[in-house]
Amino acid sequence: MTQLEYALSGIITKEMKIVADYEGVSEEFILEEVKKGEIVIPANVNHINLVPKGIGKGLSTKVNANIGTSDAFPEIGKEIEKLKVAIDAGADAVMDLSTGGDVNKSRREIIKNSSVPVGTVPMYQAAVESISRYGSIVAMPEEFIFKVIEEQAKDGVDFITVHCGLTLESLKRLKDNKRIMNVVSRGGAFTIAWMIHNEKENPLYQYFDRLLDIAKKYDVTLSLGDGLRPGCLEDATDAAQIQELIILGELVKKAREAGVQVMVEGPGHVPIDQIEANVKLQKSLCHNAPFYVLGPVVTDIAPGYDHITAAIGGAIAAFAGADFLCYVTPAEHLGLPDIQDVKEGVIAAKIAAHAADIAKGIKKAREKDLAMAKARANLDWNEQIQLSIDPEKAEKYRVTKNKPNVETCSMCGKFCAMQIVSEYLGTPTTSC
Amino acid sequence: MTQLEYALSGIITKEMKIVADYEGVSEEFILEEVKKGEIVIPANVNHINLVPKGIGKGLSTKVNANIGTSDAFPEIGKEIEKLKVAIDAGADAVMDLSTGGDVNKSRREIIKNSSVPVGTVPMYQAAVESISRYGSIVAMPEEFIFKVIEEQAKDGVDFITVHCGLTLESLKRLKDNKRIMNVVSRGGAFTIAWMIHNEKENPLYQYFDRLLDIAKKYDVTLSLGDGLRPGCLEDATDAAQIQELIILGELVKKAREAGVQVMVEGPGHVPIDQIEANVKLQKSLCHNAPFYVLGPVVTDIAPGYDHITAAIGGAIAAFAGADFLCYVTPAEHLGLPDIQDVKEGVIAAKIAAHAADIAKGIKKAREKDLAMAKARANLDWNEQIQLSIDPEKAEKYRVTKNKPNVETCSMCGKFCAMQIVSEYLGTPTTSC
Repeated sequence: MTQLEYALSGIITKEMKIVADYEGVSEEFILEEVKKGEIVIPANVNHINLVPKGIGKGLSTKVNANIGTSDAFPEIGKEIEKLKVAIDAGADAVMDLSTGGDVNKSRREIIKNSSVPVGTVPMYQAAVESISRYGSIVAMPEEFIFKVIEEQAKDGVDFITVHCGLTLESLKRLKDNKRIMNVVSRGGAFTIAWMIHNEKENPLYQYFDRLLDIAKKYDVTLSLGDGLRPGCLEDATDAAQIQELIILGELVKKAREAGVQVMVEGPGHVPIDQIEANVKLQKSLCHNAPFYVLGPVVTDIAPGYDHITAAIGGAIAAFAGADFLCYVTPAEHLGLPDIQDVKEGVIAAKIAAHAADIAKGIKKAREKDLAMAKARANLDWNEQIQLSIDPEKAEKYRVTKNKPNVETCSMCGKFCAMQIVSEYLGTPTTSC
Repeated sequence: MTQLEYALSGIITKEMKIVADYEGVSEEFILEEVKKGEIVIPANVNHINLVPKGIGKGLSTKVNANIGTSDAFPEIGKEIEKLKVAIDAGADAVMDLSTGGDVNKSRREIIKNSSVPVGTVPMYQAAVESISRYGSIVAMPEEFIFKVIEEQAKDGVDFITVHCGLTLESLKRLKDNKRIMNVVSRGGAFTIAWMIHNEKENPLYQYFDRLLDIAKKYDVTLSLGDGLRPGCLEDATDAAQIQELIILGELVKKAREAGVQVMVEGPGHVPIDQIEANVKLQKSLCHNAPFYVLGPVVTDIAPGYDHITAAIGGAIAAFAGADFLCYVTPAEHLGLPDIQDVKEGVIAAKIAAHAADIAKGIKKAREKDLAMAKARANLDWNEQIQLSIDPEKAEKYRVTKNKPNVETCSMCGKFCAMQIVSEYLGTPTTSC
């Protein structure tokens, strides 16, 4: 049974208990929201070593890190290293987007080594293998995508991105409403190529029930992908994107009716003034399904700094109600992220998620900041370092920029504001 | 005459023309808004090599970089290097916050080498010199702060932070409403120490007219400082902060009546859900004076990454109406920024400003993103690099992560979404 089916039967599962405990909310709350589909707990029955996380209403905002091999970098060991770095930096989930080397092995190694939920985009593997088996992506038999999905589900994948809303109807909207950049989703592109070439409906839409059967069997959470997400600010929130979202909303209902957990993916590239509208629209059209956004980046002109453009967009989106942020690394738009990029990407996304959680009133979040404020007020540098989102970097800065055993810091030195005022207000010595 | 006085006389100055041209707005618009005080053009009559910038209504959001020596790092050469790095990275203004070594020389060298407006916090120098002359900050004669301000104004400082709203009244609010961290503003702390010790009103408030006389003589723009800005999220938007803001609003009127250009400074540490309110409050209480915010950082727990926490806050603040962002570097809360920190700080703040400008409808901003989108659609990597906010970093990533002469990038390799879809839609080859 899926978590949703358990919830519908009124059963509080072990997974729900772990989520409730981690979030500091009641088990009944989790039960109720999983039942409504407003919280999902991606937890494949075959992912043995998983520590489940909840995504959705009333919970802390979660962060996903994409890892995986590519054609140019097929080495699995590197990706396992990235997995560890991502989890250490605070990633709540990872997606294995491998397309190079032994894709099956990559996935299995990542699942085996991952305590956090693992997602995939099965179309990637289906496309890559179609080329070797059938000569091209477009020659893929409809059967094949379901075979790959079943295989991945069996391996223990907790959530899968499936671009089921990419239908002939949404494709028509794309053609009728010109964009600067057409399609930037890889899974979306494979699907579109297949559809146009074969003059057929998207199998993941047409045979959505087959997908539901597999998802139900292993409790794979569907992450309904936005194959038509904008690739630049100019294309944001256009007819094609919203057409696809409408269809995804319809599929959310179908999935829930089948007892399958489901969330919805969102953009992408969005100007700041459109982010809240995008979130509200998703919540409304998709019946409050958890919203998983990629960034969004809020400007196109900062390659090398897209962890920052995405942190801005992610914080605003999460504050507006997005539940799950896919990280963006400094390597975005330039190449495959290396280990340092993965770390920077996760931390930037965690900052965005945490800042939004404070604003959303997530109790645990605010408490962390209060503890840091007190450590600063007490001039307790060890405590400040320990409470930092990245103690290693904070420590390095502190050590290299200051003389040892100095209470203040080199920014103000003996002119430390807090020390001066504390003296005059007769409160204990403090520092910023 | 000050820019404000010229505007009141209906005269369009050379400075107004330069600003209008840079912003792509009419000279009449600049004249009108300078007249109302909703745009300031910090341009000291003695800052010879200045290329003036406008700050305020309808203009692109500006970014300031703080530089300057400290006790532990008194070397002027390093600060001149930071000045160059800051301007190269796109800083629209710099503040010389020197407190170590030869402070006069630092300032003069920085002004001499700066094409952008230079700001200072004269209380820093007054405090440092009081210690050597009078034995302590609190022993400073009232006369002395005005002497320092006049000297700095004569040197060509374009704007000065003066904590005039830190009065006995606002200090009472601070005492009556307990904070986790008292005062984190250095200038504020010096002023408070002086006031408490001497049991006297803040001279910069009591003799505000003297300040206005100096500012008027050299056309120094007053940047009314927020000495009571919160030092942590928990203290944000409290009675003391808003009390000071009310007083600053009253002083804005006085300054304008005297023909002196004036802007207002704001926090600091602010949770995301309070940023818009802070901006609206400032605009309302301070009669739409340009708003200059320090960050704001949106969480306390990310030392080492406060350029990112401030980019989130700055983008939201600027979108809500803030006009001028003071950068925050990765070194914030840990030590004095080095050259790399300065660069990262400026770029993060520029990203925030630019993303907000797109959302605010600043035409030039959107055009840059459109150009980048087209360069991506055309797979034109040279153009993409050139249009990047930091071409050097983008180039480095591109080169190290990809084989030479490859059209796609190593993230997708031969599975480039844009290439695939372009092929099927019959449009020219494109890439993300």
